[in-house]
Amino acid sequence: MDLGSHPTFESHDDGTVLTSAPQDAPVDRATAAARRVVDAMLRTDRANANLDRVAEELNSIADHLEEHAPAVAERLIDMWNGEGVTRHDPVTGPENAIAPPIVLEGLSDGSVRGEVTLTMPYQGPPGCVHGGVSALILDHVLGVANAWGGQAGMTAQLNVRYHRPTPLFEPLTVTGRQMSVEGRKINTVGSITTADGEVCVSVEGLFIDAAVPRPR
Amino acid sequence: MDLGSHPTFESHDDGTVLTSAPQDAPVDRATAAARRVVDAMLRTDRANANLDRVAEELNSIADHLEEHAPAVAERLIDMWNGEGVTRHDPVTGPENAIAPPIVLEGLSDGSVRGEVTLTMPYQGPPGCVHGGVSALILDHVLGVANAWGGQAGMTAQLNVRYHRPTPLFEPLTVTGRQMSVEGRKINTVGSITTADGEVCVSVEGLFIDAAVPRPR
Repeated sequence: MDLGSHPTFESHDDGTVLTSAPQDAPVDRATAAARRVVDAMLRTDRANANLDRVAEELNSIADHLEEHAPAVAERLIDMWNGEGVTRHDPVTGPENAIAPPIVLEGLSDGSVRGEVTLTMPYQGPPGCVHGGVSALILDHVLGVANAWGGQAGMTAQLNVRYHRPTPLFEPLTVTGRQMSVEGRKINTVGSITTADGEVCVSVEGLFIDAAVPRPR
Repeated sequence: MDLGSHPTFESHDDGTVLTSAPQDAPVDRATAAARRVVDAMLRTDRANANLDRVAEELNSIADHLEEHAPAVAERLIDMWNGEGVTRHDPVTGPENAIAPPIVLEGLSDGSVRGEVTLTMPYQGPPGCVHGGVSALILDHVLGVANAWGGQAGMTAQLNVRYHRPTPLFEPLTVTGRQMSVEGRKINTVGSITTADGEVCVSVEGLFIDAAVPRPR
């Protein structure tokens, strides 16, 4: 992760929001609406929701959005130009309809924390969060924990342990904390717990002090 | 994973498609269109694409889909009732707009394999696949590899190693193979490689012979 001017627990207050919170902006509203469509598509009645008409309407919207899209290389420069926190990642990005999106805050003890209730699109076993989705979320949370700890890096190794099925449709707490920095090696841990405090998934990550350069 | 009547490499031909390939059905077309919207939303011009109007249209579609949605408990029974292969998971599901979706085939050597080109919604570092997305995909691929191997289970541990950044916008090969079954413990490995055969991400998974019961 490119730190930019990312806040750290030494320089900022307890409860500092570390992710890009949804803004009162058209793109945020449109993405939130797209997220509703993704979720409702999985829930709606396959036989009686006139899905061929829905397909036409969605394709028409996609055509419109694509007509107004710059070349990918140009868009990449634009999306990486700006604040240290991005708005487009698949976990916390308010502009990414794949993201739940999770809001993470930094605590004065050096950890980061967020709450999320996951729904149908994130299902693995019946009624449960997909194990890979938990890994996706935790990888991202550890990255944000590293930034809050003051030393970011790229994931080198992720060891994810599944202790019990993680429920959909219930509030979950996600946490991360940078444990040590030794030379270029960064060790970070995290977990997903239920509201009752039961640990569903825990993770240990090894990160390396490195970054992919921003496009320009 | 609930095996149902899932094909295995001992009973089926080389190249058997193990995932639910997109069908010529309204829900598949509507989901494919939603996927286009998710992708184009990240690429379009924030200032000139009339995104407030797009938000209105998408919310109207979501309202329509939700009006036709049964209760979640009822829908869960329906979505898990049927073939051993599901159509709604976030990696291979043609009915899930979050899924790329990846088609996996089983080979006669016991491995499973698929190709995918990932785009903007799956971005982590600039121009690269999010490390957590790679973990998500690999967890799912190992699950399918276990089914093809003849003994499925639930993820207990996932050890993901990142060897080099994984590129967006280029064809990637994903593979998985069940290595051993000892009592209830299943060991499975997998990787994501570039077209040149460079390994970007590798994974070792430990699975336990267990399953969350299907809702009824």
